Parts: sequence; structure tokens; C-alpha cells
Amino acid sequence: MDYDRIFADRIEGLKREGRYRVFADILRARGRFPHATLKTPEGEREIVVWCSNDYLGMGQHADVIAAMEGALSGAGAGSGGTRNISGTTRFHVELEGELADLHGKEAALLCTSGFVANEAALSTLGKILPGCIIFSDALNHASMIEGIRHAGCEKHVFRHNDLAHLEELLRAAPAGRPKVVAFESVYSMDGDIAPIGAICDLARKYGALTYLDEVHAVGMYGARGGGISERDGVQDKVDIIEGTLAKAYGLVGGYVAGSAAFIDVVRSFAPGFIFTTSLPPVITAGALASVRHLKVSQAERERHQERAATLKHKLAEAGLPVMMSESHIVPVMVGDPVRCKALSDALLTDHGIYVQPINYPTVPRGTERLRFTPSPLHDDGLMDRLVEALGDVWTRIGVADAA
Amino acid sequence: MDYDRIFADRIEGLKREGRYRVFADILRARGRFPHATLKTPEGEREIVVWCSNDYLGMGQHADVIAAMEGALSGAGAGSGGTRNISGTTRFHVELEGELADLHGKEAALLCTSGFVANEAALSTLGKILPGCIIFSDALNHASMIEGIRHAGCEKHVFRHNDLAHLEELLRAAPAGRPKVVAFESVYSMDGDIAPIGAICDLARKYGALTYLDEVHAVGMYGARGGGISERDGVQDKVDIIEGTLAKAYGLVGGYVAGSAAFIDVVRSFAPGFIFTTSLPPVITAGALASVRHLKVSQAERERHQERAATLKHKLAEAGLPVMMSESHIVPVMVGDPVRCKALSDALLTDHGIYVQPINYPTVPRGTERLRFTPSPLHDDGLMDRLVEALGDVWTRIGVADAA
Ligand SMILES: Cc1ncc(COP(=O)(O)O)c(C=O)c1O
Ligand SMILES: Cc1ncc(COP(=O)(O)O)c(C=O)c1O
Repeated sequence: MDYDRIFADRIEGLKREGRYRVFADILRARGRFPHATLKTPEGEREIVVWCSNDYLGMGQHADVIAAMEGALSGAGAGSGGTRNISGTTRFHVELEGELADLHGKEAALLCTSGFVANEAALSTLGKILPGCIIFSDALNHASMIEGIRHAGCEKHVFRHNDLAHLEELLRAAPAGRPKVVAFESVYSMDGDIAPIGAICDLARKYGALTYLDEVHAVGMYGARGGGISERDGVQDKVDIIEGTLAKAYGLVGGYVAGSAAFIDVVRSFAPGFIFTTSLPPVITAGALASVRHLKVSQAERERHQERAATLKHKLAEAGLPVMMSESHIVPVMVGDPVRCKALSDALLTDHGIYVQPINYPTVPRGTERLRFTPSPLHDDGLMDRLVEALGDVWTRIGVADAA
Repeated sequence: MDYDRIFADRIEGLKREGRYRVFADILRARGRFPHATLKTPEGEREIVVWCSNDYLGMGQHADVIAAMEGALSGAGAGSGGTRNISGTTRFHVELEGELADLHGKEAALLCTSGFVANEAALSTLGKILPGCIIFSDALNHASMIEGIRHAGCEKHVFRHNDLAHLEELLRAAPAGRPKVVAFESVYSMDGDIAPIGAICDLARKYGALTYLDEVHAVGMYGARGGGISERDGVQDKVDIIEGTLAKAYGLVGGYVAGSAAFIDVVRSFAPGFIFTTSLPPVITAGALASVRHLKVSQAERERHQERAATLKHKLAEAGLPVMMSESHIVPVMVGDPVRCKALSDALLTDHGIYVQPINYPTVPRGTERLRFTPSPLHDDGLMDRLVEALGDVWTRIGVADAA
């Protein structure tokens, strides 16, 4: 059997649809972000990164780098084991304490990524709770969808942020069965925000647990960076909060926070947590510094919001189809995968501006877009150059050109 | 509904079975491995680590630390994005090239862990190949089992390393359907080794792809650290090789290597690869240095094998039930979870020796054991102290005591 032929055919299909992905080789220079170097077969060139999820620039913060240097020279490279077999250090323990405190929960558990945290926690919930039914927002992230799928339990999808639909589904479900409502706070592709308090009230009314992904909000919202649930004063209503260390905190890794009993169950039963090497001390030490800094400093959060608002304003003024999101995410709608890729290519080639096209399966077909993530380090000059460049490629690359 | 009650009941069950896990908080000191500091509520104490999977001590190798320091001060903390959205650096690209070369394959793909690599690659194979049947060794690692389960395809488990049983199952399967044989090289709990060449010959005879997990062999076997498949001269027969950067290479992260078409399919279709932040440059730079060093240096491998043989010899001489594995793994069979934990606790408390009890679900019930991993840095003095200490606790903690 010619397996490579089967594989190649699938790849051909992606190419025909215009959604074959080519990774750009980008090296950020510490201290110079959002400037970076792009490496191509033709050589190197300077670019400005407009699509990083290092939202606050913490990946180059002096405290974070210093903590990492300390752990690296003190403890070495990797952890050397799974959490259970020699892979737990005081950095892991302290970071879990810090994250539990951040969300006002009894306990927290680190995973190797936010993806793994969602997969591990949701699949475990669905397996451990007998007869569990999971209610999932229609726009939930792939990692939540995978976790729910792997739970193997009954699942209902409610229309995005639609309280009436959620209630209809909850009401229709048998009262005696365990239920979980799983949703996000900031939806990272549209930048809209869930009515967390109202969803939790509904869940409580029907006896359901609430599971909230705050990946695109932790560090960025709330007086201590606890996310939208902190900002809205509804942390107590949420049973389980999931977050990442890889976006606002500038590193890598993910976690869940919740009751001590829930955390102990994930810790004890989730294969994705148990059977894998733990995060290196250098990473957990850096994350600890980052979380601690953003618990007390407001400067990054304030400037971040101001920068996002300014960019949305400038794009709108230029007549570009920017989505006026309520958050720091700045999507410009294109609606076609080939054109989206062509715009991104032209921005990079002609203007040294790097923004990756966002195509299916990251967003639904027909809603392909460019997604800009202005950080506190993207100043007015960079924004003006972006708006001008985008105007230029937008007029040159019409829908017709792309066909 | 009292969800915490349900969670707590599950935890109670674990405790009753004697397999509730308590993580030891260990901090290794670079340059002093295998010595480390244990932190307990009572204070700190010096211990010797006997169960790390930093098999060769590369986690404190000067070249690795230097490469990490360079990347940290040059590029900062995290990558800032998924591989597709601003998270690909030249360290990622070069490391993938180095790993493809290591295994003599066209291409390689980094994942955030070896667990994720197995899950992503096996689930994708099973989904992409229409009507696929996966043949899985009975002792395959949890991450392979998860990947196969998530593939949702037909699966047959063959008895561990049993060629006759594998052939029986292959022969019984319809000839026209795609097939994958998934197995490991070094099985990490017993330390036995698969007959890779013979399994691949069988697979070829029945038109099956071969998928080999070399997690406990890469870096440690073969003239360049390519694993058992390199040592045995059968790399060419294996279609897909999976490995980790978290054990012999001393860091964190995992990968698959195979044909360019296969790698492109995992890259393009596996949620566990696509929808997650990529490894930080500091990690991939360190891994690059580690892989490169072990491609040319034999010293670590030779000393590692000698140390493992010496420890097995010393334990056997002392009359302890050591399993005479063919590899670097040194298991001492206990056969009862409570006694296993009691032995481990006594070693730590009375002798400052840290070896985690290995209980179900990591090994089958009734085969609970202590698993020692001597590194090149465990010298004769440490070994003699270990053998003496184990003899001591072994006689004190009889099976009766544990009941
Ligand atoms: C909503 C959401 N949840 C979870 C994740 C996964 O987080 P991580 O990158 O830490 O794996 C992402 C993005 O990567 C995300 O957008
Ligand atoms: C055989 C095997 N495969 C895969 C893994 C997962 O590797 P990682 O620790 O890099 O996730 C492990 C252990 O952790 C393992 O023992």
C-alpha cells in the first residue's frame, strides 16, 4: 500500500483550498520586540511582528529573564522526570500556589500546555462523573473540543454566548445527571467576551459545574490579572478556571484551578498530566516571576488596552473592515482563504509587516481574517505604518485577484 | 449535586488501594547531580536522586546550558505563538533538520512533549488512513494508547514482543486495509528491548506501516544516539520514529520523524500539534546543543551502560530481586503497592535515597517495583550505599508489615 500517496493526496487537497500552511521562520530579539528577523531561503530581513500572543511583551521582561537565568544556572536544563517521578520542584509547587491564589481557588495544577490542561481536565471530568453531560459553547477552542470528545460522554453545543439556547438545553437534560458548562472568557479570534456571571447563574440553577477557559484573558484583565472573571467580580461563581502561561505571561505551559478535590482528581487520573515530563524549572521559575509581576503592576494592562483601542480606531478611520471587538484582539475580516494569504504575503514582502492569515480550521470557512495583536510595545509610528501598508495591499489585492 | 463529594470518593479509592501519589519536591543543583535538595514541611535535606530520566546527566551539560543562556538572552522567554502564528524560530527549524538526520528520515516535527507527539501522530494516522487498523504492543505507553484511542479506528493488541501473535493478527486482517504496527524499542519499566527488525519485516510482509517509540533509547543507543533502531542497523525498515527531548537529551519536548508526506500530514491535521504554543527558543536551542553533542560523543553512552551493568551486578550479589534487563533500566520487583511505597519512604527517610515507587497504572497491578536509573554520574560509592540501604529496608519491611 502506498501510504505516502494517501498522505500526499490529503496535502494536495489543502493546497487546492488555499489553506496549506507555510511557517515563517521568525527570530525575535530580546529588547527589540516587536521587531524581529525573518529568515527565508533568500536571506534575512527585519520585520515587525503583528500577530504574537506574547500580548504584553512579558517574554522579554527583565524580571522574567532574570528568574529564568537564575533557575537555569541553579537547577540546570530539564526537570528530569514526570511530576510523580522526580519532576516536581519548588518552582512547580510555588507556581501552583500562586495560580490558585490568582483565581481565588483552593488549588491549581500545572500541565505542559494550555492545550493539555483543557484536554486533561475536560476528558477527566467527563469520565469521572457518571452519566456526565457537557454543554459546550459553539466557538470553543480546539483543545476544549478534543477534551470533550475524549471524555466520551454526552455533549450538547450551545450557540455562541447564547444564554437562552444554553438554558433550553440545560432544561431539557435529566435533572439527576452531572453537568458541565464549558466556555471561554475572551474568544481569541473575534475578541468578544462571554457573560460569565450570567452563564454561571444559569449553570447553578440547573446544578451544573462551570469550566472557564481564560487563556486569552489571564494577566490582561482584572486588578491582579485574574482574567475577565476577576474584572467582572464573578471568580467565585466559576468552579474551574483554565489558563495558559504562554500568552500574556510570555512563556509556555498551562493550568487548571479549582477545588482541591477536583485538582486532585485531574492530578491522579488524567493520562495527559501523569505520563509526561514536567515543565523545566527554567520555565516555571520564569512563569512565577511573570505571574507575580502582573499581580501588582497595572502599567502593562492599561497600555495594552489603550494600544488596542487606538489601532481599532486608526483602522476604522482608514475605512478598513476592522471588527470593533470589546477586547485587545483586532481582527480585520477578509472572508476568503486565498485572498487572506495573498494579503499577508504582500504585507510581509512589500512592507516587512508580519501577520499570519487566519484560515479554516482556526476560524469557520468564509470568515478568514487577518488578526492583529497590538502590544504595549507597538507605538503610534508602527501603527500608522501598518494602517498605510494594509490600505495599500487591500486595494491592490481585490477579491478578483485572488480567484 | 455535590461534585466535590464525587471527586473525593474517587481519591479515597486510590488511598485505600495504597496508590495515592504524593509528589516529592526535589531541587537538583546544576553541577551536583545526582545530589539534590528535598523540601518537606519539616525543612530541607540533601538526597541522592535514583529515579531521574535525565539518563545521561545532559540537563547540566555545559554546552546545553550555554546554548540555553544564549537563546534566553538573545530571543527572550517564550516563542509567543503557535508554530503557524509567529511561533517558528530557526532553532525549531534547525532542530527538526537535526532530528530527521539523526533517524535517517526525510523530515521531523517537534511537539510540545513526547506524549503529545505520540497522541498527535497516532491519532492522525488512524483518522487519515481510511479503514485503518492499528496493531499495538500490549505494553505500549499511555501516550500511544491515548493516540490510538483518539484515532477511533479498529485496534488489535498483540502480546508484548510476541512476533507469532502479531503475525496471527496481521494475517487475519483484510489485505486491502491500511495497517499500522505501533511499538517501543526499550520498554521503560522492564527495560526489555523489542526485536525491531523482525517486527518491521513482518509488518512489511503484510503491507503495514511501522511506528516506533524510541523515547527511552534516543541519545543512549546507536553510534549517533539514533536509538536501538540505529544500534541494530534497522533504521531504514522503520517508517516512523518517535522520540523525546526530555530524557537522555535532558530538556522537554518530543518529535516524530518519517517521510516528508507523513510529517506534512501531522503538521497540517493534528490538533495537538496545531493549536498550541510552540516550545520556547531557550528549550529548542538547548535541545539542539544536546542532540548535536550526543551525535558525536560516545563517552556518556559507554559510561551509562557500564554503570547500569555494575548496579545490576551489585544488587544481584546482595541477593535483591533485580530484573536483569538488557538495557540501562534497573527494576527491583516488589509486587505490592503498599510495600513498594513503604520501601521508597524508608529509603528516603532513613537513607536520603530518592526512588519513587512505581505502581499501577504505570505498571500492571502485582508488578509494583522500584525502578533505578543509574546515570554516568552515579559512582561506585553511591551504588554501594544504595545496595546497603536497600538491603536494610528490604529486611525491615516484609510483606507482612505492609498489610
Ligand atoms: C482558547 C484557547 N485555549 C487554549 C489554548 C492552548 O493554550 P497553549 O498555547 O498554552 O497550549 C489556546 C491557544 O493556543 C486558546 O486559544
Ligand atoms: C515510552 C514513552 N513514550 C512517551 C513518553 C512521553 O514522553 P514525554 O515525557 O516527552 O512527554 C514517555 C514518558 O514520559 C514514555 O515512557
